[in-house]
Amino acid sequence: MKRDLIREIVKELDSYIPEPQEAEIIINANENPYNLPQNIREKIGEVISEETFNRYPDPYSTELRETFSEYIGIPAENIIAGSGVDEILSIISNTFIEPDDIVIVHKPGFAMYKIWTEIAGGQVIEIQEQEDRKINFEQIVQEAIRNNAKIIYICSPNNPTGTTIKIHELQELLESTPSLIVLDETYVDFADENFIDLVNSYDNLIILRTLSKAFRSPAIRCGFGCGPVELIDAMNKVKSPYNLNRLSQDVGKIVIENFDEIEPAIEEIKLRRNRMYDFLDGINEIEVTPSQANYLYFTTPRH
Amino acid sequence: MKRDLIREIVKELDSYIPEPQEAEIIINANENPYNLPQNIREKIGEVISEETFNRYPDPYSTELRETFSEYIGIPAENIIAGSGVDEILSIISNTFIEPDDIVIVHKPGFAMYKIWTEIAGGQVIEIQEQEDRKINFEQIVQEAIRNNAKIIYICSPNNPTGTTIKIHELQELLESTPSLIVLDETYVDFADENFIDLVNSYDNLIILRTLSKAFRSPAIRCGFGCGPVELIDAMNKVKSPYNLNRLSQDVGKIVIENFDEIEPAIEEIKLRRNRMYDFLDGINEIEVTPSQANYLYFTTPRH
Repeated sequence: MKRDLIREIVKELDSYIPEPQEAEIIINANENPYNLPQNIREKIGEVISEETFNRYPDPYSTELRETFSEYIGIPAENIIAGSGVDEILSIISNTFIEPDDIVIVHKPGFAMYKIWTEIAGGQVIEIQEQEDRKINFEQIVQEAIRNNAKIIYICSPNNPTGTTIKIHELQELLESTPSLIVLDETYVDFADENFIDLVNSYDNLIILRTLSKAFRSPAIRCGFGCGPVELIDAMNKVKSPYNLNRLSQDVGKIVIENFDEIEPAIEEIKLRRNRMYDFLDGINEIEVTPSQANYLYFTTPRH
Repeated sequence: MKRDLIREIVKELDSYIPEPQEAEIIINANENPYNLPQNIREKIGEVISEETFNRYPDPYSTELRETFSEYIGIPAENIIAGSGVDEILSIISNTFIEPDDIVIVHKPGFAMYKIWTEIAGGQVIEIQEQEDRKINFEQIVQEAIRNNAKIIYICSPNNPTGTTIKIHELQELLESTPSLIVLDETYVDFADENFIDLVNSYDNLIILRTLSKAFRSPAIRCGFGCGPVELIDAMNKVKSPYNLNRLSQDVGKIVIENFDEIEPAIEEIKLRRNRMYDFLDGINEIEVTPSQANYLYFTTPRH
């Protein structure tokens, strides 16, 4: 019997396939160039060699969430932890998107918003950036209202342009659309401003954070969703029971607790980013976009 | 504006909420009573303290899959690794289940088959066990054909009864139904027989394995799906790009490589299970089911 088992949407899916990292200088994944300091890694090795490997992890990553809560200034009950922002995105799709729901993303932007939406059977509307490479909020609001959009994804600083949004733009989205606003702040530790405090004021805002960039720890896959308790509780029902393994919970906690040793390099990366911006900006044929992230977006005549 | 953002199916969802583990003897999660030996844990601590935390993990867990491939005797291209069998189940749902597809499970059985199916919008048909607590294959085949079932989940040894299936029962399912058969062998390392070799012979069979039970490592969340390349490739398109963190890949590899140190306890657990079975079987009012897993299912008059 010949069976056709695979979903049509999966057959058509543009998969997000990371490039293999074989070069001497690797910049394709916007990673931090610095490993965790040796003393922190030694501490991690000690803690992990004492772990109880034969027991499942804490389903709610309680200690990790409490540690992150203290760092970010949002109550732990407003936080869900997962295997990277990627898992938080998949949980968002599974919690909120019904088949044929409309989801709005801006373009260019992070590919996974679209992929997880399509896997959940949602329809994606892509809104092109403005000429200045900023997000076109006017059009996003229009389309969200016209299509009764379920979710609007905003990435700030945006991947890949490095541009940021203004607070009044975010507030207008939150107040004038029927949508859940998911603000991806993956790169915000490299920016001058963040909007995490708004989580306390809105019932339709989820902000995403990660330990993969400024915290130098993509190896452990640890991301957070911060939002109203009602939405976080619903996401907890949908996530895998033991979604974040014990080792990542251990390391995440240690990394946040030792942030003072990790922080200085953030300033250095910002300094180098700005110096590189000035350099590129001084070349006539290159058009470089001001960035608040740890990367720069530029075009050349061959672009 | 009051928004109703959460999916109806999620509001109604019976969440799988693990009980907190605060007792001296913990048996609710069918865990292994033994931690990894100290020398293996020390080796793990050394490897992890040298890790490149600032780089994303290998998206395809290549070394881990190759190590597991050697252990299990199935080519690595037939294997997908994930954050526990739980993540493999969610990937299966996302890869194969269209809204309103029919999925057949047996009852009692592992709760997550139903939950992931419902999250994907599928409809679950539950088939009650036979009087001898074995899976009712006759009825499963009937219902699968009648409803053109997309997936049939079979758990052997079954959680929670510990009963196993016969090869001819599995072969009949594979050959006479229109369905993808997902055989969950989470507990098979405690059984006398497994069916992994059938992966080479069928285009509609996925077998699930884990390091969480006999391999004593639920802490790392490491599970495998073994199946035909065409289905594994589709699942790779659907999974999170970096779904299994570096530390779990490291530890999984070390644990499999050191299986000879872990294996003896499996025999001991089987011996104790059989001894406990005999003890319970000798009590008049208790009805205990023969088990091929690391737990026993029994009823008392108060049941």
